[in-house]
Amino acid sequence: MKTALTDLPPNAPRIAALVAALPSSVPFTGPESLERGLGAKFRARLGANESSFGPSPRAIAAMRDAAARNWMYADPTSHDLRQAIAEHHGVMAADVVVGEGIDGLLGLACKIVLEAGSVVVTSDGAYPTFNFHVAVAGGRLVKVPYRDDREDIPSLLERAKAEDARILYLSNPDNPMGSWWPADDVQRLIDALPPGLLLLLDEAYVDTAPPGTAPAIDANNPQVVRLRTFSKAYGLAGARIGYAIGERRFMALFDKVRNHYGINRVGQIGALAALQDQDYLADAVARIARARDRIGDIARANSLQPLPSATNFVAIDCGRDADYATRVLGRLLGAGVFIRKPTAARLDRCIRVSCGSDAELDILAAALPAALAAARS
Amino acid sequence: MKTALTDLPPNAPRIAALVAALPSSVPFTGPESLERGLGAKFRARLGANESSFGPSPRAIAAMRDAAARNWMYADPTSHDLRQAIAEHHGVMAADVVVGEGIDGLLGLACKIVLEAGSVVVTSDGAYPTFNFHVAVAGGRLVKVPYRDDREDIPSLLERAKAEDARILYLSNPDNPMGSWWPADDVQRLIDALPPGLLLLLDEAYVDTAPPGTAPAIDANNPQVVRLRTFSKAYGLAGARIGYAIGERRFMALFDKVRNHYGINRVGQIGALAALQDQDYLADAVARIARARDRIGDIARANSLQPLPSATNFVAIDCGRDADYATRVLGRLLGAGVFIRKPTAARLDRCIRVSCGSDAELDILAAALPAALAAARS
Repeated sequence: MKTALTDLPPNAPRIAALVAALPSSVPFTGPESLERGLGAKFRARLGANESSFGPSPRAIAAMRDAAARNWMYADPTSHDLRQAIAEHHGVMAADVVVGEGIDGLLGLACKIVLEAGSVVVTSDGAYPTFNFHVAVAGGRLVKVPYRDDREDIPSLLERAKAEDARILYLSNPDNPMGSWWPADDVQRLIDALPPGLLLLLDEAYVDTAPPGTAPAIDANNPQVVRLRTFSKAYGLAGARIGYAIGERRFMALFDKVRNHYGINRVGQIGALAALQDQDYLADAVARIARARDRIGDIARANSLQPLPSATNFVAIDCGRDADYATRVLGRLLGAGVFIRKPTAARLDRCIRVSCGSDAELDILAAALPAALAAARS
Repeated sequence: MKTALTDLPPNAPRIAALVAALPSSVPFTGPESLERGLGAKFRARLGANESSFGPSPRAIAAMRDAAARNWMYADPTSHDLRQAIAEHHGVMAADVVVGEGIDGLLGLACKIVLEAGSVVVTSDGAYPTFNFHVAVAGGRLVKVPYRDDREDIPSLLERAKAEDARILYLSNPDNPMGSWWPADDVQRLIDALPPGLLLLLDEAYVDTAPPGTAPAIDANNPQVVRLRTFSKAYGLAGARIGYAIGERRFMALFDKVRNHYGINRVGQIGALAALQDQDYLADAVARIARARDRIGDIARANSLQPLPSATNFVAIDCGRDADYATRVLGRLLGAGVFIRKPTAARLDRCIRVSCGSDAELDILAAALPAALAAARS
């Protein structure tokens, strides 16, 4: 769907120059669009890093109960949820902002910090939706290559300093490779941030990471915003509830720009119930870990190399070039298995498989040998 | 919650000048915050123009069913809902954009069109959330007074031309007065728009308006964007689903700036089910009309003047000045009745009461005489 500005009729509204210059590409094509293109439903939904283990039964019950009262707006301050998040992390409610997923919060952070041309440093191959929001805010992206399939913290910091960047984006654990840094390395980065630089630390996948991956949260540090979500281990991607934790005076700026009534009521209630069921979360994380192992077994059974993962997905090195991995992906899609793959140089030799149920992984296991054979020929 | 930029620590991230200069005020304080301030729950929730008649039972059932599958992201293209909306209005799906309520869509429209300092014309006393989004996008608001408690279409057009405005905002029917223009008058405005001007026609309340209020939808006109919502007559304010209809090449620009995964799954499914139950909508509209009449009766029984309304609320002229109306409001809040009031000059002599259930209006009827007596003394 391309829209050149010149396509608009002569009486059309004037368009902001920044927006007119933006590309029309979208960050991620959803599985439903792919299904419509293929003319068939996927048999295994293993491409969006959702959790098919689902949310806590208590969250489901709370959302079902909330449906009939969905005629009311949600509390626009997300008071109860923010209070619970604050207690969970040992911070104050004023340090917490709730948004429409981490995606929404990344957009707001870019809006708050960036001027036209402000530099933002990220990894080449990291989260495309973040890059999308940087472009919308008029920022200029500087990309640092992954090193050994991991975001390269020392080089990211070096480039941020050299470019006088306003934002440094780091996901830990990272998507799409599933790799991670121990907390000590991230803390060293935090301690070395030059004044005026904001670290957006995307921890969407931290709930499934080994202990010792997340540095202690310091809500007195105005240079770090921690981003968490109910979309991954909590199993509530559809609820669109993420949150950010940072220094309260910086976080107060979100109120200047956010869509105050943007949070849906059922999702907000479900997220609170999910947070209050940490036993279920532990169980879900264990099931995700078992699925991760199983994906590794399936890969190795097909002479492919699974990469170590701290997330709810596994990147699998297909052992050849990007074209080969793309062919494998295409064959799996055609066989009804929805997965995705990295696109940046070197990472693009891999495919990425989300942790799913045994039934879904059975379908993957059955489809993979033929997909590989077809891709080789 | 004021945040002067100077309050931030010296090592804090740099803040975009536009955002630093924005006020910290929020458009609407939610009833939950008011309740926390009062230390008590409201007995009647009549201030947010929600529909306590609720959504279609089919929508409730669909949302309950969707809860357990809320581990999946919603289709980011809102394909099925957009298709149904398009069929409902006799337009193409490409002419429709779904957003997080009309609020979210207003923000995106401002982002698409406005440059720093671009002029936006609206009515003084019209929707504060729109004004908020104009400020966030760097636009400059020019406000035209209401005339006879109605938005002044001829003066709005005249000012938009004189100021070379990029956007003209009109709500029809309007909030907070509940007044409206017949379709012919709105169509004359549309026909007279100077090239390059965008009319944002907010029709959040059109479902409760008399037949002949909405002009025919012409999705070939790139200068008009029609805004509709499931929050009002459809009874799904908590779902946060609104939509915009316009010329497809202009609407395609929304994809450049919107949060593609911002729509929640349960709300999207509920909205589709609500749209498909037009019989229920007709019933809800009839109940809203009866509540409107009842609010009028309650006002007249207290020697107050209800204004004619095409919406799901009634503005009541308290017959004295703004201070008096504010005192009435305060007394009602203290008596557990949540309502709001206009704040712009001349409109501010009124209070605004949303259409609620008989039980809620009973509480209003019981509380109003004492509130008026206390406000007079």
